[in-house]
Order: sequence, then structure tokens, then C-alpha cells
Amino acid sequence: MDIVIGIDIGGTQTKMGLVDQNGECHDKIIFRTKDYPDLDKYLDKIKETSEELIKNFGKPVNVLGCGIGAPNASSKNGTIENASNLAWKGSVPLVEKLKQRMDMPTRIMNDASAAALGEMLFGCAKNMTDFIVITLGTGFGAGIVANGRLIDGFDGFAGELGHVDMTMGDGRLTGLGVRGGLEAYVSATGLKRTIMYMQSKYLTESRFRSIAYNDLHGEDITKAAEEGDEIALMAFDYTARIMAQALANFTAFTQPEAFILMGGLTNSGKWIMDPLKEYFEKFLLQVYKGKVKLILSGMEGKTAAICGAAALIWENHKNQPN
Amino acid sequence: MDIVIGIDIGGTQTKMGLVDQNGECHDKIIFRTKDYPDLDKYLDKIKETSEELIKNFGKPVNVLGCGIGAPNASSKNGTIENASNLAWKGSVPLVEKLKQRMDMPTRIMNDASAAALGEMLFGCAKNMTDFIVITLGTGFGAGIVANGRLIDGFDGFAGELGHVDMTMGDGRLTGLGVRGGLEAYVSATGLKRTIMYMQSKYLTESRFRSIAYNDLHGEDITKAAEEGDEIALMAFDYTARIMAQALANFTAFTQPEAFILMGGLTNSGKWIMDPLKEYFEKFLLQVYKGKVKLILSGMEGKTAAICGAAALIWENHKNQPN
Repeated sequence: MDIVIGIDIGGTQTKMGLVDQNGECHDKIIFRTKDYPDLDKYLDKIKETSEELIKNFGKPVNVLGCGIGAPNASSKNGTIENASNLAWKGSVPLVEKLKQRMDMPTRIMNDASAAALGEMLFGCAKNMTDFIVITLGTGFGAGIVANGRLIDGFDGFAGELGHVDMTMGDGRLTGLGVRGGLEAYVSATGLKRTIMYMQSKYLTESRFRSIAYNDLHGEDITKAAEEGDEIALMAFDYTARIMAQALANFTAFTQPEAFILMGGLTNSGKWIMDPLKEYFEKFLLQVYKGKVKLILSGMEGKTAAICGAAALIWENHKNQPN
Repeated sequence: MDIVIGIDIGGTQTKMGLVDQNGECHDKIIFRTKDYPDLDKYLDKIKETSEELIKNFGKPVNVLGCGIGAPNASSKNGTIENASNLAWKGSVPLVEKLKQRMDMPTRIMNDASAAALGEMLFGCAKNMTDFIVITLGTGFGAGIVANGRLIDGFDGFAGELGHVDMTMGDGRLTGLGVRGGLEAYVSATGLKRTIMYMQSKYLTESRFRSIAYNDLHGEDITKAAEEGDEIALMAFDYTARIMAQALANFTAFTQPEAFILMGGLTNSGKWIMDPLKEYFEKFLLQVYKGKVKLILSGMEGKTAAICGAAALIWENHKNQPN
């Protein structure tokens, strides 16, 4: 049976699994990225874990390769570069070093781009040639597909849309120091910041008056909205409005058929999606109105990133008979 | 000799010429678009003019097809849709109707996208796979190439970047009613509006205090800058700053190797380009700094649009022997 090793490298956790041609993730092992500040020991751990997954699988497998999704990855260079939430600094030649340990086809890509490939091969973008995946977690990530191909950019750093300035240089700072950058508003973190902002702007009573920023979680905000907390409701409306403006702007760029949304912020369901859809349709240029879908990713949350990473290898095999 | 008929449809003028495989435009005929508010009569005029060009050419020609650049054109539908500066209203099936008169391969495309194809086949983007052409005339147009292919979008309306909102819904109105839309700031018209704005904001003496908006021309502003007029200098700086922010944002989208600039505003030369380059490098995300070129189109101004239009047909022949 043909199989691909999928690896999702996150700041906190690394998730690995074996992914078949249907995008099903068999078995899964998670370990803490932060336990391996030394890159060589981290790569040894990847190798061990791969062997463990294959051993556990039960049936004989033919490993086609290894696909990796990671923040700040360049697919063209095979590197991770200056990732702010990883311990390995500078330009890390991850693909080259991993191939010294595991001799097989190996590719790396920005995690949101990998997610886009995953949606195209296994998810709700199977028949689409023009779409954009938006990941709304700690930050704001984007994987852009046009003409049926992922957009890499000149040296592999396309899609850094979280750092697009929405305010002509006047606004919140992102982690990369961009004033007015989108992810300072539209992300799980951005929503928390907006809860603070609404408390600064209004005197409205709210459960958040007694919760500190560091104790604030996305689920609390959803729950507060369900209870009619006005600060929560205003924060969702504010977030949805800015996100709608951003997606309307992005539509003018590649005119996607759909935006596919995933990540922590989407767990807030209708509280973000309802105002988002309304504002989005309002902000779209006439020529785009009614043509662009906003959909939630159908891929199973906990393995979506692994499957996306595995898609980097599967896309080279998809037209071949098994 | 193989030849392509190139047609540039503008609000004021229609320009037609015969373009060879090297992108050279032989002969050229210009007539007023506004003289033909009736579409059928306009298309008859196109047919007549084509025959005239071929007759004038002197040598026997093999016409490969007809390429058209026009505002608000959909390459996928072969139509012009709701163009605000053309007399023909609604959705105009231009390709279908023209083929009834001239039986040959015929394609139409947004004028800025056609310009991008022209740069790729004949101009300064010959060896580039990722670049963006920006046209700065009455409006702001964009033709986006990624992975070596033009981005059309889901139904052919990608690249409407003049209507991207830069201000979170607070700012100047574009002709299409977009608040804070880019082309209200960055275009030949935008520069004129900024001359008005600077007169509102400051009391500084200026030659523009005695020139009405309708009498104001781009050349005057360049000339005033050369003479040290402070309002003109501030207007160029303001325009360049917003344009730099926009191009830095666009870089995060497809990470182009270069932006290729053309159109009326670029005639202001260093007055726009010097501050633009400085702000652009400053606003770029760290990962892009020093990697993105800003260049002026090398294609001869008066025939660039005709050659771009002809490129729609030539791109299907470029790899074939003659």
C-alpha cells in the first residue's frame, strides 16, 4: 500500500501521520516541538517517529515520500526562515538535513499553502482551480491557488497576507512589526485584542471586565456572545467587518471561486460567519457580487494539517494508477 | 509573413496595428471610439480598418488572429461588462460578434492583463515567471502573472486592484463607489485630487492656487515639482507613499520578482519613482526586502497597448517554428 508521511511543524506541537491516497490519516503521533531546541535532535526524533508509525501500521507500506508544513517555510529553497515561534534561528535547511536521515522525496511548504493543497486533493476544493485557504489561528495565514496551481512567489514566500497593512500605516502592530497588519485584527489573537479595545472604547458592562488578557480564551468569547455579552458581540462584529474588507480586497486580486476558512477563530461559528458573510457581500465590487463563496473547511480538524503536508507528495502521484 | 491584428479599445480612442512575432507594430490606425456609440457600426469599423491595415502592409500576410485589450473585459466570457467609460452598456459579447464579421481566432482581455502578456512575450518580463504590470492612467489597472501564467480569476475579472480599499472604508470615493479605493489616490487622476487635498490642508503658496481642477494636467504637476512648488512636491510624496504601501501589500500576495509600471503617471519620472522606491523598500516585510524590482516598462508607449493585445494570439504560437 502506498503511503506518504505527513508532518505538521507548529510552534508548540509537531504532528505526524501516514496519509493514504484518499487523504485518510492512519495513526498519528504528536510530540512537543519545544522539547527539541537542537535541530539535529529534532530531526532524529522525526526519523524515529516515522519508523514507529510505519512499524505500528501493521501492513507493509511503500513510502512515497515525506511532506512537511511549517511556518515561514520556502518551498523553493526547502528552508524555514526566521520563524518567530520556532527555536531554530536564521535560515534552516530542513529538507536537505532531513534527506540525509531519510532518503526519500521530501518537500516543505508554508503551512497555509500546504492546507490549500490538501483541500484541492482531498477536501472541498477538489473541483476548483481558483480559491484561497485562510487559516485563522494565532496568526493569519493564506494559501492561494490560481489557474489550478498553488502560488509560490518568486522565491517561495507568497501568501503572507497576515502582514498586509489595512490602515495606511496607522493601526495595531503585528508580531513582525507591521502597523495595521491584518493578523493584528483577524485571528484568534486579534479577537482577544479587540475584546481589550472594546473595553477601552465603551463603558458597557461585560464578563470580560474581570478577566485578564492572559486568561482570555477564544471559547470564552463565543460563550459570552451566546449569553448576549455586548462587548463580545461588538468584538465579533468588528473582526468580521475587517475580515470582510480584507477578503473583498483579495477577491480583486485573483478572483477566487471560494475562500475556505479554518483554524481556531472559525470555531466561533455563526458569531463570526454571519456578520462576515453580510459585510463581505456588501463590500464586494459589483462585478464579483454573488460569485464568491465563504466556506468552512470540511477536513477533520486534528489531521487537516498532516493531510495538507502529505498532499505535497501526493500531488505528484494523483494522476498515476496505483 | 505571420501577423496578428492588435486592437486597444479605450474610452476615447481605438488603436489598431499589425504586430509581428518580435512584437514590432507595423503601421497603425487610430480612430475615435466615441464616434461609434452603436456597437454594430463600431465592429464594422474594426473590420474595415483591419482590411485597410492589411492592404497597406505591402507584403502578403498570414493573419493568425485578432487580440483585443479593453477595460472591464472578461477573457473567459469574451465580453466587456459594464465598462463605465464606454458607450455600450451591460454585457457586450464582443468576441462572438466580431467573429461573425472576421472569421479568425479572436481573444479579448482586460487591458492591463494584455499589457502583462505583452511584457512577457516582447518586453522586459521575457524571463520572468512572477511579476505584476501596473497601469497608471485615468485609473489604476493590474495584470498579474504567477507561475508563468496570467491570473484570470474564476470568471475572468482578476486584477481589479484599483478598487482595493486602503483605508478600512474611510477615504476618497472611486468611480465605482469604493471608499478608500486605491485608484482614487494612485493614478493620474488621483494625483490631481491630491493637488486639491494639499491646497485644503496647507496654506502654502503654489502655482496651483490659480488653476482650476478641470484645467489641471499631469505635465503641469511635474513642471511645478521641477520648479520647487511645495504643493506639487508634497502631492508626489503623498502619492508615492500610498502606492508603496499598496505594492508592499501586493508583494505579500504573489511575491512578484518585479512590478512593471506604465501609463501617464510614470511620465513624472523621478518625482514619483524616487520617493516610491524609498517608501517601498521601507514598507516591505523583512523576508521580501531587496528582492522586488520596480521598473518602468521599456515598451514604446504609443504601441505598447496594441502589442499587448496582439500577445493574446502570439502566446499560442510562440513555441512554434515559423
